Amino acid sequence: MPSNAPITGNAVIGQSGGPTAVINQSLVGVIEGLAASDAVTKILGARHAVSGIIKNDFIELQDIPQERLDRIAQTPSAALGSSRDKPDAEYCKKIFDVFAKQNVRYFFYIGGNDSSDACRIVNELAKANNYELRCFHVPKTIDNDLVHNDHTPGFGSAAKFVAQAFMGDNLDNRSLPGIKINIIMGRHAGFLTAAAMLGKQNEDDGPHLIYVPEAAFDLEKFKADVAEVYGRLGRCLIAVSEGIHDHEGTPIASKLAADVEKDAHGNVQLSGTGALGDHLADALKDHLGKNTRVRADTFGYLQRCFAGCVSPTDAKEARLAGRKAAELALSGDLDGSIAIQRVSNSPYEVEYKRIELSDVAAKTQTLDPKYIVNGNSIDPSFRDYLGPIVGDLPVVESLRGK
Amino acid sequence: MPSNAPITGNAVIGQSGGPTAVINQSLVGVIEGLAASDAVTKILGARHAVSGIIKNDFIELQDIPQERLDRIAQTPSAALGSSRDKPDAEYCKKIFDVFAKQNVRYFFYIGGNDSSDACRIVNELAKANNYELRCFHVPKTIDNDLVHNDHTPGFGSAAKFVAQAFMGDNLDNRSLPGIKINIIMGRHAGFLTAAAMLGKQNEDDGPHLIYVPEAAFDLEKFKADVAEVYGRLGRCLIAVSEGIHDHEGTPIASKLAADVEKDAHGNVQLSGTGALGDHLADALKDHLGKNTRVRADTFGYLQRCFAGCVSPTDAKEARLAGRKAAELALSGDLDGSIAIQRVSNSPYEVEYKRIELSDVAAKTQTLDPKYIVNGNSIDPSFRDYLGPIVGDLPVVESLRGK
Repeated sequence: MPSNAPITGNAVIGQSGGPTAVINQSLVGVIEGLAASDAVTKILGARHAVSGIIKNDFIELQDIPQERLDRIAQTPSAALGSSRDKPDAEYCKKIFDVFAKQNVRYFFYIGGNDSSDACRIVNELAKANNYELRCFHVPKTIDNDLVHNDHTPGFGSAAKFVAQAFMGDNLDNRSLPGIKINIIMGRHAGFLTAAAMLGKQNEDDGPHLIYVPEAAFDLEKFKADVAEVYGRLGRCLIAVSEGIHDHEGTPIASKLAADVEKDAHGNVQLSGTGALGDHLADALKDHLGKNTRVRADTFGYLQRCFAGCVSPTDAKEARLAGRKAAELALSGDLDGSIAIQRVSNSPYEVEYKRIELSDVAAKTQTLDPKYIVNGNSIDPSFRDYLGPIVGDLPVVESLRGK
Repeated sequence: MPSNAPITGNAVIGQSGGPTAVINQSLVGVIEGLAASDAVTKILGARHAVSGIIKNDFIELQDIPQERLDRIAQTPSAALGSSRDKPDAEYCKKIFDVFAKQNVRYFFYIGGNDSSDACRIVNELAKANNYELRCFHVPKTIDNDLVHNDHTPGFGSAAKFVAQAFMGDNLDNRSLPGIKINIIMGRHAGFLTAAAMLGKQNEDDGPHLIYVPEAAFDLEKFKADVAEVYGRLGRCLIAVSEGIHDHEGTPIASKLAADVEKDAHGNVQLSGTGALGDHLADALKDHLGKNTRVRADTFGYLQRCFAGCVSPTDAKEARLAGRKAAELALSGDLDGSIAIQRVSNSPYEVEYKRIELSDVAAKTQTLDPKYIVNGNSIDPSFRDYLGPIVGDLPVVESLRGK
């Protein structure tokens, strides 16, 4: 029977989907939030997300000293292990069997939009089975593509990595001029690719061209764009999202692989291969001449878990999102998802709001069209949005004329 | 006529070859060293190395305030611009014409082994033409492959990048288990690839396998190695040098490209393509089954210029190597190359010694065979060598049993 008092029982926390540099901040935030109440006896960490629950594979988390919690929070990637399993009704039945057996009354699932959908399914089955479960999704994704969120934990640190990578690569490309393509993670949303522009200081700094999945990609226009910049500056640094697709919506990357790999959510494998970058580099060499210096790097998994590249704001917000979920679960018979919403930009301030699971589950937020200029660049106003999330970047200085 | 007194005239500084995160420390070190003497009137920075000299394209560097010098020193990549031109006798004749016209009596060339060879050629032609020139090579290469050097400026910061990348990727791979291949820069020397092991803390941490160019690469053995680790741990993280070659010495990467690109030094293009990683990933999928999760990332140019990932020791040594070259040039009619040699490991201490240009030019140092175990891993004693050069790594903490 629903009540506003904390229900006595155990809690389960899972971490799902692709890891981030700050996903353990959220884990520790939930643990800290729950520690405030006597209602929660054991805090069980599910090893490898839902797959650990059905195997009854848990780590007890309630007695970890604060110092160790702080070190775990600072460690990139999912300390509990992750999974890409998408639970169906049968899968969820197994989850309930374990929850009932362990008297689990609090469930926290830290993840992205596929993970929030998994959370929604578990929650709905709990309701259908009259099993009282306080079920919260804690946002996490470097893709920054959760609706009703100004931005998501994990994105700020990944964006910092991308911005710093481009700052260095712009200087590298200036030093040894040529054409350089960098492929950035992002299936449907171009936020992370757009972050490549954050470190630009001078008018002629790269990236000179930015291609996001929100704008249809046309190879002929791409070649003409690059030829124009290269002709003008003698070099060209390009940011390309792995998720770019043609006018029919077919990802360019999927057209390259004869035999495309898909995960349980039906997503085509985009990362972990250099094929897209190499394809675009070859197209440019064909267009501009074989002796043109064209290179392509695919940033790959470094973007989400590089040790030592964390946005302090991102780390703090990830921690507080976890704490907020625990506080709400303890404060009443609630379920939902935590959304980070920006209250003001100067001074930068956010709030952590409860939204319905069904409002966020399996939905995708994309880059506001106002930021996409000519299908090949990002408006400078994107800095106002991104800057406070990423924080300070390294100082660089050039020797040019001035 | 040779003398031990500083000769009055101008100085030229160039930065050559692939840039690094600390190559501007050496530039600033030379400038600071020269500033101590009244003998040097103008300090001319050659834009894009030797190619800037013959075009008379210089930036004056003698009047830059210290604060700005410090910011330049902290900026990755070559602030003067770089080049891969290899000067022949005719090219050097043009260099002398410019030097004579500008009364250049001091020449500092910051670069790797190809660059030290360029420096040697310029120096020998100067001698043959009875042109008094104090000509110094300042070491720089992320490959760490200069002979008579314990290690080279640029390597420590690149090694830090690789170590931090592997720390994060090991946690990522633990979180979502599978097979992961990371391709590391290094044509003939495996130092940077070997650095992947520095962040290992637990027995089962990755990288589990490391392949360097110093050991012949056998695809069948590679597949068997990976199958063994994957069978035992359920995951496998692998570091592979871009320069791996077969028993005949043919680079594996060059066998993949129908039409291989070469630079002026005859070097085949290895970086800026994901082909080698994708090839190895495909071979593993064929061997272990198409549904095996295999991913490959090629770290590419991020390794040498990522903004915000610098070893403090590397930065300091790069600066002092530049200063030492200037001091020696001012102290007598000398030429040579600066070599960093380790005096003691505990406490860590190095000295900066003058060696002959011909001792270092176009020679390659490779990894001591004592570090290479079974052709697929690096001995733990490599930490004693590498640790002090890289400095502190981020603290990570796991949730496992203990």
